[in-house]
Amino acid sequence: MKVQSQLVQSLQSRPIAEELAKKQKEISIAEFFERNKHILGYDSPNRALLTTVKEAVDNALDACEEAGILPEILVTIENVKGAKDEFIVIVEDNGPGIVKKQIPKIFGKLLYGSRFNTLRQSRGQQGIGISGAVMYAQMTTGKPTKILSKIDDDHPAYYLELRLNTKKNVAVTLKEDIVIWDKPQGTRIQLELKGKYARERKQSIFEYIRRTSLVNPHVKIQLTEPDGTVTNYDQVTFLLPKPTLEIKPHPDGLELGTLLNLSKYTDAYKMTSFLVNEFSRVTTMTARKLCELANIPGNLKPKKLSLDQAKALLAAFDQIKLMAPPTDCLSPIGETLIKKSLKHELEGLKPEYFAPPITREPIVVAGNPAQVEAGIVFGGELSGDQQVDILRFANKVPLLYQQGACVITHAIENVDWRKYGMEQRGGKGIPIGPAIVFINVSSTNVPFTSESKDAIMDMEILRKDIENALRFCGRKLRTHLNKKAQRNKIKEKFEIVQKVLPKLAERASAVVNKPVPELRPVIAKIMDIVFIEDSLRFEDGRHKVEIVINNYTTSPKKFRILVEMHFKDNLDNITPTPQKVGNGWLVWDLKNLAPLEKTVFSFELNGLDKDSYDGNDIYIDGLNAIYIVGAEPWHGVE
Amino acid sequence: MKVQSQLVQSLQSRPIAEELAKKQKEISIAEFFERNKHILGYDSPNRALLTTVKEAVDNALDACEEAGILPEILVTIENVKGAKDEFIVIVEDNGPGIVKKQIPKIFGKLLYGSRFNTLRQSRGQQGIGISGAVMYAQMTTGKPTKILSKIDDDHPAYYLELRLNTKKNVAVTLKEDIVIWDKPQGTRIQLELKGKYARERKQSIFEYIRRTSLVNPHVKIQLTEPDGTVTNYDQVTFLLPKPTLEIKPHPDGLELGTLLNLSKYTDAYKMTSFLVNEFSRVTTMTARKLCELANIPGNLKPKKLSLDQAKALLAAFDQIKLMAPPTDCLSPIGETLIKKSLKHELEGLKPEYFAPPITREPIVVAGNPAQVEAGIVFGGELSGDQQVDILRFANKVPLLYQQGACVITHAIENVDWRKYGMEQRGGKGIPIGPAIVFINVSSTNVPFTSESKDAIMDMEILRKDIENALRFCGRKLRTHLNKKAQRNKIKEKFEIVQKVLPKLAERASAVVNKPVPELRPVIAKIMDIVFIEDSLRFEDGRHKVEIVINNYTTSPKKFRILVEMHFKDNLDNITPTPQKVGNGWLVWDLKNLAPLEKTVFSFELNGLDKDSYDGNDIYIDGLNAIYIVGAEPWHGVE
Repeated sequence: MKVQSQLVQSLQSRPIAEELAKKQKEISIAEFFERNKHILGYDSPNRALLTTVKEAVDNALDACEEAGILPEILVTIENVKGAKDEFIVIVEDNGPGIVKKQIPKIFGKLLYGSRFNTLRQSRGQQGIGISGAVMYAQMTTGKPTKILSKIDDDHPAYYLELRLNTKKNVAVTLKEDIVIWDKPQGTRIQLELKGKYARERKQSIFEYIRRTSLVNPHVKIQLTEPDGTVTNYDQVTFLLPKPTLEIKPHPDGLELGTLLNLSKYTDAYKMTSFLVNEFSRVTTMTARKLCELANIPGNLKPKKLSLDQAKALLAAFDQIKLMAPPTDCLSPIGETLIKKSLKHELEGLKPEYFAPPITREPIVVAGNPAQVEAGIVFGGELSGDQQVDILRFANKVPLLYQQGACVITHAIENVDWRKYGMEQRGGKGIPIGPAIVFINVSSTNVPFTSESKDAIMDMEILRKDIENALRFCGRKLRTHLNKKAQRNKIKEKFEIVQKVLPKLAERASAVVNKPVPELRPVIAKIMDIVFIEDSLRFEDGRHKVEIVINNYTTSPKKFRILVEMHFKDNLDNITPTPQKVGNGWLVWDLKNLAPLEKTVFSFELNGLDKDSYDGNDIYIDGLNAIYIVGAEPWHGVE
Repeated sequence: MKVQSQLVQSLQSRPIAEELAKKQKEISIAEFFERNKHILGYDSPNRALLTTVKEAVDNALDACEEAGILPEILVTIENVKGAKDEFIVIVEDNGPGIVKKQIPKIFGKLLYGSRFNTLRQSRGQQGIGISGAVMYAQMTTGKPTKILSKIDDDHPAYYLELRLNTKKNVAVTLKEDIVIWDKPQGTRIQLELKGKYARERKQSIFEYIRRTSLVNPHVKIQLTEPDGTVTNYDQVTFLLPKPTLEIKPHPDGLELGTLLNLSKYTDAYKMTSFLVNEFSRVTTMTARKLCELANIPGNLKPKKLSLDQAKALLAAFDQIKLMAPPTDCLSPIGETLIKKSLKHELEGLKPEYFAPPITREPIVVAGNPAQVEAGIVFGGELSGDQQVDILRFANKVPLLYQQGACVITHAIENVDWRKYGMEQRGGKGIPIGPAIVFINVSSTNVPFTSESKDAIMDMEILRKDIENALRFCGRKLRTHLNKKAQRNKIKEKFEIVQKVLPKLAERASAVVNKPVPELRPVIAKIMDIVFIEDSLRFEDGRHKVEIVINNYTTSPKKFRILVEMHFKDNLDNITPTPQKVGNGWLVWDLKNLAPLEKTVFSFELNGLDKDSYDGNDIYIDGLNAIYIVGAEPWHGVE
């Protein structure tokens, strides 16, 4: 070794270290990403175009929602004439606009933004997304990005042409102008870049817009594709999601360095007020307790907090169990809207079953509140011999790339789906079956694996929570499948008994030359159940429900039928007259159903959305559970 | 919509945009990664400790190799007394050292380094790794990082204590000193950080060091674990890998923006010399041709290159097929060393078969040369009912996290392994079988999915190349398995014939009361093959080979046996005397082998490493291929 290294040294008059030192230098964040553009999501022409649209749309949605405006977004993609691989992307919103001075920085400087330390849910956070798109556009076509923005009718609209000086990471305004724009307010960005437009792919702009609309029912988007096709996604609701509130950092997951930084830059004069002011869920009493535990005087100046004191304070935080951070900083989609959206989108596939979606209780992931939502759609025309389809979302933004890297995928792989009626080798891996699995993760700081925000980091607490959400949906699916299997089994048995037995009896009678005996009591003896079959169809704006009850037992039965009903005012044509309507229930008393007799109950719902009522929940009271097939035995109160 | 937005506006005296503008600000790259430390690989205590060690070791190896020094690395991990979750990491190398002035910047400033635009293979490239570790250490323990460095015996050793001001991304020297260090040169870094030490995991420091040693046989590493366990990995070779040479960018994959930047900052006065000087594989003739095609005067000043001219030049690059970039910037491991290392490491599992590894021809990925190497180890004690084990490397650095996100994994999933004797549902996904799949990707700029460098981006050209490498190994595996299956089948048949037939004959003879007939011709008739079985064992420093040939046909056979032999000088005890030794072959002529006779050939190799000869390649010449079992028919020239 020595020989070799001396050899190298002898070839040079100076130590190697001095030669090496000459090459060492600093680069700007923009140069870094110019060289590593794939990390921002610009690794292929197809994806580059998608990333650009995604950054612009996410920005537009954030701006509108932050200002309390129902978003109306126009997305246009045009092919540049004479250049097959160049495209113009235009994204226009009706948001609050941007003041002129800020426009160059927001679009032409990396790591510039408004949401860095804001602890509340938003799509963008890093100040890299849209300026990255501007940089990629100029890198591939040399063309500046054009911005038009208007903040209200008292101000003119400003038009700017921008580029980004990557060596220095600063914006350069090439041209600016005051123009007339008939929009009351809003922002319009136009980029020209190299790319590829592929509609048929799963990872396409078309799919991204479709999925964005799926989980943002309050958004109106129009997409105009290069071939001129216009697709409109209208608002499904005119209610903006509840505005998210900014919260203070929660001590859970706090790093020592962050604590020391906070203590250095706080306006508070004493430790106790510092703790109350800067952290969420710390009351004056808790603050005193914390100082006591950490052996720090409550009136110590925060700036004077020493390393050891900071450590002691962190230890004290661990000892006191604080309340979880408030969750009004989050904006989950909600179970009702998930169901509505999934149904709306997937109607064409005629799924057999929509497992009730779940919005879990918020958790804390590395100090940030996070919330998991899940849903499963099963059967129908979904393909049964392939891996289930996974729809991933983070803060309502569709994730289309890097599925294998995402905690959502890992959670799905970790659940034993064999229990829930799907095929899965060894109970690990993505299951095979006719299903779509939907997951949305909301957080004030979604821990993405990279700046391109395609996949969420595999953090254990988050993965476990997703697994639990999936198991919840899985159990619902299993119940559904069991019920179906049970019914099918009974039906099969019933068919055999009803068809084969009479024929057998006939032949046997013929052989022994006796009359065919009355078989119905025999059938009842064999079956020995009360069989309930219900149906629901939607016709002429009406939900029509029929419940058929067969008594396949040897004795007359008397019981009560309860149907869960939250639309009392829409009820119509109830036959026969029920014993009770109200308190969430529609109730009939069945006085006497003779052996082998059947009876029919029916009702209609008038004036409801198709999706508002999508299945009957039927319970039977007053009958031993072992007889009931096709409904649930009643255990509760009406 | 309007109502809502007006409502919000009326609550404020000024346009919303002006309120929003107040929040907009810039953050430093250090603040960005402080907030997103998981992107650098600090998402869990276990991984944080591993990432820290990895960054320090990668740095040390790069420094040594760049200076032409055989690396000797000491890695020590100590548990801080009284703090279960705090560790001291010390990494010491015998590299060229760092000049004093550069030490703070290299360790205390993000995006500072020496390899940004250097087009040659190295482990680190971004200037983020080690300064990220320093930042994480101070963030979690508040402790500064301690550096000791010495550039040669004419200079003293410098000792510095550093921290990183994240608000400004600058290094702060807390303490500096001149000290005595008995090492001739080298660097020692000591960090104190929060973490967790787990040896038993697959994703552990122990495993990282083991795998690093696996693919860097020229490196000596000593690992001291917190419990005091010392593990030494000695050099397997004393040859440094061929030093990599820096190359110029290749026009393939060049972006317009990069071209314009290069033309702006070049020292060349004319376009033709600019093209020759700044790009690899552009000759003066090509440069003239390019200018002609692009309709640019050859003597145009590069600084004056217009956007349209630059575009025309890019189009001209596309028209002219340039040679692929030179590959002396790459440093693959090499087929021999891969085999040697795999054998050395996996001996304990007694694998049945090492498929010959392959080092593919270099390719160009987004303008950067890249090279793929693959190997497969099969059978033995490897578990057969689990997914195959994947060993991923990039520029000889083990990749332990984010397997699902990596192009290597995707390539494995895309190959139909059912053809190669493994189980795989639908011919997609990670196969099930007793195998280890080894892949190393070398490149001047490995396209990682994020700054933590755990996974390589899925770029099509790279994925296809990995798939081809895997198929090559797969075919070798299939040949091996087929040969085995064929032999087993013949053996089975042979056993039945040899054991059952005589008994049948005996009984039949007894029944008809006649003498037992001579069965050997019957057996020969049924088998009708020449069966070659070879064995190899290593004893007393000698490879001992025996080749047994059975003539299970009805006629005498005459043929030639050829054994591939590259160790002529080590041959010993060849029995019987061969007809020929040399030109890579050992040859016997078999004059006459009577039906149902067998003959044995044997030889020994003296003084070879165990791994140097690991299997016999036997060919038969002069015999119809349909008779040969257990060797290959000969089609070539000796």
